[in-house]
Parts: sequence; C-alpha cells; structure tokens
Amino acid sequence: MRRRHELCDLLDERRPGYSLPQPFYNDPDIYALDIEGVFNACWLMIGFSVELPKPGNYLAMTIGRTPVVVIRDRAGAIRGFFNSCRHRGAQICQDGTGRAAKLVCPYHQWTYGLDGRLLHAGAMPENFDANDHPLRPIHVEVVAGAIYICLAQTPPDFAPFRRALEPMLAPHGFENAKLAHQYVLVEKANWKLVMENGRECYHCAANHPELGISFPIGISANMSIEDDTRMRGYCQRMAAHGLEVGPTDGSWWQIARFPLNEGMISMSPDGAPLVKKPMLDLDGGDTGSLRFSIEPHNFCHALGDYAFMFSVLPVGPEETHVVAKWLVHEDAVEGVDYDVPSLINTWDMTNRQDRDLAENNQRGVNGLGYLPGPYSPKAEGLVLRFIDWYCERMRAHIGAPSARIAEVA
Amino acid sequence: MRRRHELCDLLDERRPGYSLPQPFYNDPDIYALDIEGVFNACWLMIGFSVELPKPGNYLAMTIGRTPVVVIRDRAGAIRGFFNSCRHRGAQICQDGTGRAAKLVCPYHQWTYGLDGRLLHAGAMPENFDANDHPLRPIHVEVVAGAIYICLAQTPPDFAPFRRALEPMLAPHGFENAKLAHQYVLVEKANWKLVMENGRECYHCAANHPELGISFPIGISANMSIEDDTRMRGYCQRMAAHGLEVGPTDGSWWQIARFPLNEGMISMSPDGAPLVKKPMLDLDGGDTGSLRFSIEPHNFCHALGDYAFMFSVLPVGPEETHVVAKWLVHEDAVEGVDYDVPSLINTWDMTNRQDRDLAENNQRGVNGLGYLPGPYSPKAEGLVLRFIDWYCERMRAHIGAPSARIAEVA
Amino acid sequence: MRRRHELCDLLDERRPGYSLPQPFYNDPDIYALDIEGVFNACWLMIGFSVELPKPGNYLAMTIGRTPVVVIRDRAGAIRGFFNSCRHRGAQICQDGTGRAAKLVCPYHQWTYGLDGRLLHAGAMPENFDANDHPLRPIHVEVVAGAIYICLAQTPPDFAPFRRALEPMLAPHGFENAKLAHQYVLVEKANWKLVMENGRECYHCAANHPELGISFPIGISANMSIEDDTRMRGYCQRMAAHGLEVGPTDGSWWQIARFPLNEGMISMSPDGAPLVKKPMLDLDGGDTGSLRFSIEPHNFCHALGDYAFMFSVLPVGPEETHVVAKWLVHEDAVEGVDYDVPSLINTWDMTNRQDRDLAENNQRGVNGLGYLPGPYSPKAEGLVLRFIDWYCERMRAHIGAPSARIAEVA
Repeated sequence: MRRRHELCDLLDERRPGYSLPQPFYNDPDIYALDIEGVFNACWLMIGFSVELPKPGNYLAMTIGRTPVVVIRDRAGAIRGFFNSCRHRGAQICQDGTGRAAKLVCPYHQWTYGLDGRLLHAGAMPENFDANDHPLRPIHVEVVAGAIYICLAQTPPDFAPFRRALEPMLAPHGFENAKLAHQYVLVEKANWKLVMENGRECYHCAANHPELGISFPIGISANMSIEDDTRMRGYCQRMAAHGLEVGPTDGSWWQIARFPLNEGMISMSPDGAPLVKKPMLDLDGGDTGSLRFSIEPHNFCHALGDYAFMFSVLPVGPEETHVVAKWLVHEDAVEGVDYDVPSLINTWDMTNRQDRDLAENNQRGVNGLGYLPGPYSPKAEGLVLRFIDWYCERMRAHIGAPSARIAEVA
Repeated sequence: MRRRHELCDLLDERRPGYSLPQPFYNDPDIYALDIEGVFNACWLMIGFSVELPKPGNYLAMTIGRTPVVVIRDRAGAIRGFFNSCRHRGAQICQDGTGRAAKLVCPYHQWTYGLDGRLLHAGAMPENFDANDHPLRPIHVEVVAGAIYICLAQTPPDFAPFRRALEPMLAPHGFENAKLAHQYVLVEKANWKLVMENGRECYHCAANHPELGISFPIGISANMSIEDDTRMRGYCQRMAAHGLEVGPTDGSWWQIARFPLNEGMISMSPDGAPLVKKPMLDLDGGDTGSLRFSIEPHNFCHALGDYAFMFSVLPVGPEETHVVAKWLVHEDAVEGVDYDVPSLINTWDMTNRQDRDLAENNQRGVNGLGYLPGPYSPKAEGLVLRFIDWYCERMRAHIGAPSARIAEVA
Repeated sequence: MRRRHELCDLLDERRPGYSLPQPFYNDPDIYALDIEGVFNACWLMIGFSVELPKPGNYLAMTIGRTPVVVIRDRAGAIRGFFNSCRHRGAQICQDGTGRAAKLVCPYHQWTYGLDGRLLHAGAMPENFDANDHPLRPIHVEVVAGAIYICLAQTPPDFAPFRRALEPMLAPHGFENAKLAHQYVLVEKANWKLVMENGRECYHCAANHPELGISFPIGISANMSIEDDTRMRGYCQRMAAHGLEVGPTDGSWWQIARFPLNEGMISMSPDGAPLVKKPMLDLDGGDTGSLRFSIEPHNFCHALGDYAFMFSVLPVGPEETHVVAKWLVHEDAVEGVDYDVPSLINTWDMTNRQDRDLAENNQRGVNGLGYLPGPYSPKAEGLVLRFIDWYCERMRAHIGAPSARIAEVA
C-alpha cells in the first residue's frame, strides 16, 4: 500500500484548475485508497424501489470487491446488508435480482431473516449465540423511488439531499414505474476518467450526434441554457405546474431542471416522446429533464416519458463498470406503448461513444508524455467540481489538511 | 513484499476457533509467503509410482511457479529434479508425462542423465566443469505406490508418516494399479478456501447429493461414524482381515479407515462397485475407505475397487488448480471392467460442486462485510486443524513464536 | 516500487559471465525500472522513412505504456511527439499509420500543427496561452531511411552511430523501398529473454532448420564466419564494390556485413533471392547481409533483395511484443516480383520458433530451481555483451558505480 504521505504529496502537487497527476488515473495503490476513501465512504445510487416490488425481493451487486444486497423486508421497508455470511463469509445472494422468504447461505445453510437476524445455524455448540451473528447492515435511503446506499459506519449527512430531491423528484412517479431495461458496460478506464467524461459536454458536438439532437450541449455548470428568453419561459412554465427548477446543490450532489433543445420533448432520435404512457403527464411531456447527480459516481435524467440512470462502479485501476437503467411508467406495455431499442437508443449510443473516449483517454494518460492540463472553466466546470471534490474527499480520508478550492464557474 | 511483522500481527489478530482475517484469502504478498512457507517447504502428494512404469518415464508439473520433474532412473528408483536447465534456466521437460533416455534441454541441448548429471554441454570452454552443473535434486518419497515430493533443502521428517501409512496402504496394491483418469480443475479461489472446503462435510447434505449416497456425511474429525454398533462391527471385520483402521495422525498428516453408509460398497452413484477387477479383494470390496491426507494440500480415498487423489496446487492469490486422479487395478480393462464416466461420476460431480462453493466463498470473503466466523467444533474440526496448522507453519516460517492452539475436537 | 538499493544489491549479486538473477526476468518493480532506465532513456528503432511518404503521414505506436507519434512535417522532416493531448491527456492518433493535415485530438478537438504547435483549443479563457501547450517533442533521427527515436530529454550521443551506419547502409536504398509486410508477435516472456534469444545462434542448429539453410549459425560475435578463406574472399569482393564490411561498434550498437552460407544469396527457403527487383543490385544479389543492431531492442538484416527489422517492445514483466517489418524495392510488384508468404517465410518461422523458446525459458526461469548459468564465451558473446550493457545501463540509471566488465569474446 502506497504510504499516505505519498498520496498527500501527490494531492499537493496538483495544480488548481488542472487534471490530476498520472498516478491518480492508473496506480493500483491509489485505486485501493479510492475504494476505501470514496466508494466505501460515500452515498451511492444503485437503482429504484420498483425493482423490489414485494417483501423478499432483493437486488444484489458488488461495490468494488464488496458484495451487498438490498431487500424489501416484511414491513415493506428497504434494507441493505453486506452479502457475506457470518459463518465462513460465503456470498449469500448471487448478484442480480431474486426473491426469498429468508436469506439462506448456499454453503452451510445459515439462515437469516429479511431483517438480517440469524435464525438458524446447524451444528453449532450450545454457547453459540445467534444474536452475535446477524447480517451486517449497510445504510439505505429511498428518495421518491430512488435507492441510495452507503457502506460506511457513519455516512455523510443525507438529510439536506433528501430535502432538496424529494419535492423535485416526487412528481415523476418513480414509485409507479417499472424497469424497462438495464445493462452493464465494461470500460477499460479508471473510474475518474469515466466520471470526468460524464461531467462535461465540451466533447459532445464532435462525438455525440445522437445526444446533441435533444440535449443542450452548451449548457452551463448550473444547468442553465444560453438562450435567456427560452430559459425564462421554461422557468415560468414549470412554476405554473408547481415544478421546481432549481438549481440546488450540496458539496456532493446537484439537482436542476432544464429545457431540452427547442422543439425537443424527449432525449430521443427525433426529440419526440418514446413512451405513449408518460411518467409526468404535463404539457404533452414537454417538461425538459430533471437532472440529479451525486459524487462520486452517478447522474440521472427524469424526462416526461422515461428516466435514465448512469452509475459508475470501479472494478480495477483501469476498469470500470457503467450500470445503466431505464424506467418507464408501470402501465406502459412493451411493444405497444414503447419498444426497448428506440427507448435506449440515445443514451446507449452516447454510452458507447463515451466508453471509446474514456478508454482512449486512459491510453494517453498512461504515457510518459502526459502532463495534467487545464480544464475549461466555461465548458468543464462540473469536471473541475468533481475533481476538486475528489481531492478534498481523499484529503479528509487520509487526515490531510484541506486545500483552498477555486470557485467553480 | 509485505513485511513479516505485518504477517505476524495478522496471525496474532486471528481469534482461536475462527476463520482467518481477509488478507490471508486474497492478499498477493501473503500468497507469496504461502508459496515460500508452505508449498516450497512441505511434503506434497503428486501422483503414483505406476505413472512411471519404466526407467526414463517422467511426470513434470509446476508447483506454484516452480517446474519440477519426477523420473524413474535406470536402477528403477524414482528421483526428482527442479525442471530448469543449469545453462539459461529453460524448462527441460514440458509439463505432463513422457519418456526419455536422457533429459535434453530443448534450448541448447544441454543433456542430463536420469540421475541428473550433466553429460553434455556444447560450446563451453575448457575450464567448464560439467560436475558443477547437475540438475538440482528435490526430495522424493514413495510409500506403497504414492509419490510425495518436497522442494525444501531440509524437508520435514517423513519417517513417522511412512511408518504409519505403509502398512495401511500396502494391501491396496497401488503398485499393481494403473491411472484410469486424471484432470485439472481451475478454481477462482484462494487455495486455503479450496482446502477448507475439502476438510469438512458440513456443506455436504445440501450440496453433494451424489457423494452423500455413499459417504457418511456426519463423520467425525477422526473418521468415526455416528453408529457405534456399526463402527465396532466394521473394526472387527477389518481386524479379521488384518487391515488396520486407525485413526493415526501427525501434525501434518492423518490416516483412517472408515465404513461407508449402510449397504454401500463404493463411492458410486448407487453404492455398488464400479470396477469388476478389485484393487483390494476382500468381502466383495466392502472394506470402506482408507482416507489418507496431508497438510497443506491433499487427501486420498482408497476403496475396494478404485482410489481417488485430490491435490491442490496454488497458481495465484485467487486461483487454484485441483489435480484429480483415479486409480484402478492394472488388469481392469476399460469398457469391459469399468467405464470412465461412471468411475469418476461421484467425485467429479463433487469437485465441480465444491469449485462453485469455493468461488462463491471467495467472492463473499473479498467484501468489506466479511468478518472471520466461528468454525463448528462438531462439523468443522478438520478445517480448524488445517487452519491451526497453517498458522503455526507460517509462524515458524517467519520466525514468530508459536500460538497456543486449542485442542481439535 | 522496489528500492534502488535493492536493485543495486541484485546487480552486485550477478556473477560475471552468468545470466541474471531471477527477479530481473519477472519482478514487476524491476520491470518498471527497465522501462524508466532503458526504454525511456535509450535510442529505439521503430521503422523506416518510407512508411511516411508525404507531409502529414504518421506512424503511431506505444513504447511501454507511452503512446508516441512520428510524423513527416510540411518541410519534409520527420518529427516525433508524445501522443497525448495537452488538455486532458487523450491519445491523439490511434496506433498504426495514417495521414492528417493537422493533429486533432478526438476528445475535444484541440488541434496541433505538424510541428506540434497548438493551433486551436475551444472554450478556453482569454488568459490561456496556446504557446504553453504544444505537443511535447521526442527525439528522432533518420539514418539512410531507418528511423530511431528517444524519449529521454537528453538522449545518448547519436553521432558516432550515424557516422558508422550511414555509409554502410546508404547503398541499400531504404529511401527507395516500400514496406512489404509487418506484424506484431506477442510473446509471454520478459523482454530480456526475448533479446538474449535474438543475440545468439547457439540454439539455431536444433531449433531453426529454415534459418540454418542460409544463415551461418556458427558465426562469431563480431560476425566473422569460420571459413577464413571464404571470409577473405567476401571482404575483397565487397571492397571491390565499395561496400564496407566492418565490423564496427559502440557501447550500444554494432554493425557488420557478413557472407551467408556457401551458395546462398538470400535468407530464403532455398537461398535464392525472393524479390526480382533487388534493393542492392550487385553480384546478382550475392552481397551477404548487413546486420545492424542497437541495444536494448533491435536488429536488422539488409540483404540484396530485402531487409528485415526485428524490434522488441516490452508490455509487462512477462510479456513482450516483437515488431517485425520487411522492406523491398519500391518498384517490386507484389504477386509479380515477389509474394509475401515466401518473402517472410524464413524469419516468420524463426520468430515463432524463438517465441516458443523464450516462453519456455520464462517458465523455467520462474522456478525456485533456477540458478544463473554460464554463457558460452564462444557461442553467446553477444548475449553477454547485451547483459553486461544492461547491467551498466541500470547502474547508471540508479546512480550506482559501474562494475568492471569482462571483455566480450
């Protein structure tokens, strides 16, 4: 393990406004510290409450190297646990979704309730106390149908984010939705390069022709479009529907509603809605997009007709999984009200284009010729915000003093 | 390389009766120390003398990263060598079996006798002394047809194991047997997880329906079955044939004969013998199984009709090869007296089920949620014995003082 | 990173005349130091000027983990750059060949001239100075059509090599040639094992039947054949044509012309020329081969009818790429004057045989049984020269005192 003072030196070496020194993008020891200091410490967005419709439905996944399971208990609440048996540590639920009355370890059948209590362990001696061996809980928060988890014992304060997101997201009816599609895209790039890519649209004009049809690629860091007249009109129209526009943010989250390009109603090949049964049935679906995002790893877009989730999970210093999910109204019928290829087209094309860019970025950054370069304050404000946040997070993790951070444009 | 004092701290951290702290199961530096302190230091079981029927027959394999070759010399003795040329280190015999009058390095044709002496080296100067460049020997012991090797300069004392095993194994006629089948199974799990799996049958009822037909899955750590009356009868019957039952053991080995389930004569799909020509022709083959095993990596079962070897070879912190071999009487004719699919069915199914369990165990152990858990004294006594042995071995390797070990049930 | 004093101890441990201690062949930390101290510091041979016929033609490749691009500028000169954008470090030109009027980064379209100057960067603030962000240059030298690059800020003195090579290579007309074929061969072996293999023909008799037809496998370290009468005749004949024979060398390079086996005119399946239109049109092509090589990674053979380049690029402690290229006269027509399968046959067979030998060497060297062995002064003089050079290079890199090196035979 690279010594913490070395990481501290590297953080000090970073020039404000510039990308990170090379080791942050490929060093195995820094990667290990990223897992510790970021993914084991921060809130992460992993999916939607409608993925767990009934008690016993679960969603299992691996964060870094840590298997976790999120499950709806008998009372209907969503709970989370480390997905490792308290006996010999075997993974209890396979990654993916399923339903179980009790959680039974496949190895020696240690059996846990949906609340995590150990109910049965065979062949153990009399002095064995099942109460000492419950599944270890993780923190779970559900906001208007979006599920957030945190593996830390003491998570960052979630309340301000909830207060801001809940009223803005609630009208989108995530609790009356269904998962229409999901996939995992493997990217041979450090998770921070994947995130930097997802935090700016400076690269969109040349690389994302499909996304650029509907997405205002010149949008500012606070999600304001360049045409002030249109922006004002949009705000008035949203206000008339009681929809907050924002923007609002905290150190690790950002929420804003913004209009799409003129005449565009959805992020779709031609700007027209892709789902006949809308999630937010106002103005014919012309409500722009509610973008909500958290550091270190996620953004979502809630449109009138569908919602899209993009969450990054690191799997190695130079490998990252992108988990992509699409929600539609629960009553929308596949093949009648929507079809999956059209529904996912815009973001799927964009994801694959971004994968190629991130992998190419990784190859260049790995070279002796790489020097940290300047971010554009105008076009890369959210990248800078992400990288500054990351540096502060790592300083806090290793107990180093905070740097003064330049104001984000 | 992780410092030895860190390993010492980790060994001290282990709670008696509990599984190991996480790094023992996935840390690359501890893996490197395992190779040094265990696989380069202990006796290993690698096969059978009948695999080398004539002078010049050899068996080459890789232990960790070390190629070795075991060969029958002109006098009929079995010898072993490091399989690296003394010139530029090339591997001399490819892994697998073969026969050679002399050992000729494929690179520059340095040529060695079956006794390891360098017989020819072209283009070397006059002052080059071939006697300074023999193949480097490794230790080999053959006990009643079973081959053990040790890569250490000074191996652990083999004599007590030989004294115990030889009379018990000799009646099984391994020297008049033949190899009926063998394979290598790749498991994505640390070698210790593979071994822990192989040292208990707590997991058998739910996971090994085929093995459970014949194998007494509730057997104790000293290979005694629960039904005292049957056990006494078995012992008397074996005594009448002059077959020792045991159990007997040393710090790194264990030998015991035990009865199969009532009415079962072999480990087979229906308990009936699988080979018409038996290896041990007594009581219609109803002699139970002679189980002999050594730490760190092996167990064998010698039944009336066949014998099975299971040896673990580590190839990485989270990857292990299981070498499985089946012996039958040399006169048994394939397709007439036995067929391979039936012969291997029970252990092959068991091996593959165990691979899935070990890989699942690895995934769960890798997580932040893993905590060492308590072994069942009743059902996991041999796991505890293995782990305690391992900890003592590593303490000895790094020169740390011994821990007091709880008595094994 | 392994401490430098540990490397120093390992260098001191090496016995003169013997192969290297094991860690030099498989340790990841020494591999990292090899990249720093050798591949980022020395001249490397990467191809031919005819691969870049016009301004804007480029050749991009990765040295270790460093993408570089070599390009012909508007004035016709060949220049080289680190192939990483000064903005966010993305790789600008994909590895391979291409042609571009300007170098445009695919990520955010930062645009550079063929001289490396930054011409355009969108969305940057007013105080951004493009002059501060040119592509970072690397050193390039072209000698009679052969391209050499160096990634170091201060490269080793190239002049003596140029002075020696230019007059000897110029008659071969590399500037009027064309690339007939190229490939990359992946070898699972440390780059030094690949190089050691390529620096001796002790292994040729048993392993390279095809090469042995034309190549004088008993050739000495200074490229003199055993038959003095033939050698004298060859020298006289070459002198009559004004062709220098040499040999001549420096600490990191060696050049010599030598005759092929009696009656053989080219390195070909039957010794006959493979290309109807010769590169060096003298004596019916019977001019032997001009061999020129540099440490750490290359040799070339310029025959009458074709030229062959062999350059090693390390990609990991136990993985190496061999880049092989074949040149023929630019007027030779494929399918008429030559065909590729015949043209490449001799060296392609040789390369693949050598790959198997190097990979086998790696397996043997990885073992506990490996001990450094003695090189044959008679048959492995150039291996010894390479290894001695390597040790001195690494001593210089880490600032350790030089060892006294035994004279090379």
